[in-house]
Amino acid sequence: MPQVRVAGFSVSADGYAAGPEQSLEHPLGKRGHEIFAWYFPTKTFRTMQGQAGGTEGVDDQYGARSMQGFGAFILGRNMFGPIRGPWTNEDWKGWWGGNPPYHAPTFVLTNHPRDPIVMEGGTVFHFVADGIRSALDQARAAAGDLDVKIGGGVATVRQYLEIGAVDEMHLAMSPVVLGRGEALFAGLDLSALGYAVTRSAAGERATHLVLTRQ
Amino acid sequence: MPQVRVAGFSVSADGYAAGPEQSLEHPLGKRGHEIFAWYFPTKTFRTMQGQAGGTEGVDDQYGARSMQGFGAFILGRNMFGPIRGPWTNEDWKGWWGGNPPYHAPTFVLTNHPRDPIVMEGGTVFHFVADGIRSALDQARAAAGDLDVKIGGGVATVRQYLEIGAVDEMHLAMSPVVLGRGEALFAGLDLSALGYAVTRSAAGERATHLVLTRQ
Repeated sequence: MPQVRVAGFSVSADGYAAGPEQSLEHPLGKRGHEIFAWYFPTKTFRTMQGQAGGTEGVDDQYGARSMQGFGAFILGRNMFGPIRGPWTNEDWKGWWGGNPPYHAPTFVLTNHPRDPIVMEGGTVFHFVADGIRSALDQARAAAGDLDVKIGGGVATVRQYLEIGAVDEMHLAMSPVVLGRGEALFAGLDLSALGYAVTRSAAGERATHLVLTRQ
Repeated sequence: MPQVRVAGFSVSADGYAAGPEQSLEHPLGKRGHEIFAWYFPTKTFRTMQGQAGGTEGVDDQYGARSMQGFGAFILGRNMFGPIRGPWTNEDWKGWWGGNPPYHAPTFVLTNHPRDPIVMEGGTVFHFVADGIRSALDQARAAAGDLDVKIGGGVATVRQYLEIGAVDEMHLAMSPVVLGRGEALFAGLDLSALGYAVTRSAAGERATHLVLTRQ
């Protein structure tokens, strides 16, 4: 049965899944790139970037798994871009250039409706203004037999965890402290929501934890 | 030069260093023992308990280091026992029985003065009612050329981190989520306080991080 998964979600040792002060210059917030330091050297990431080489160990295996098997994606508005409030024009088409890494229907949560954007490589951005459950229904329908990925950011992942919609969450715990940023765990009782760590693996540059809902 | 260290401090993936509802029955709070699951099978812990055998890998090395080289310890009142408020009698002498694992002067933070207690094996509990800086001064003097360990609990460690008194902190990050409990990181900006992860090692049952103050 298709699942709803969070995957490759990177978190600092002190629980931040993005740095503070996201901006055009800092898509992951200040110092946010440090929590992804495990991912950048992998063959999976380098291939996505059109580069040769890369590591092929545990980090790469988890990195590859975090992008495979998905028929649709859900992103929060801030993960799509730095613009807040109404769309002033249609110019912004995401952080990723003309050919985003999704290659599937991708549902962007927003309070401000906008026409879909067809990108190269199979990614179509759909803007969903009637709530997270509607976005999930649409993503499930679009994904068919494949999984739905909740891509982020932190607020979006937390909302789907809180309604029990996430079947599996892969966290890459990075050996770094950020001190400030978007806190993943604060006030979120994962145990009460039914989640437990069911797999743990030491990667080369992060510890990978897989949480499943019991 | 002698250092002030936090060591072997166990934290869940979601940042809890003790479970909720500490009591006589649950010294580490409910489910708190799960974050120490890396420690119990080690040769170091088993030897402390008078038992033979035990693992001798990375977890054991960090476990051993977390109890070596200290000339004095500082504990919060709750780490010493479950009693709150004034001492109603002198019966409670810590969680550890007649021969506690400290074997050195051990300074217990409290608002309620009490005479020192001489235990077997070199541990003497001193009760300090005039603040954390006084306790640190006394512990440093008692430790001489050896390090001072801030033993816990969470509130005590946070207070010493906030005043920049901790030179090094070894965290054992356990692959478990508690959902509730004593949060180590919430509202504590370790980066702003000068801390960074300077060593990371995959143990058999936990990831060991060493933070040092720059």
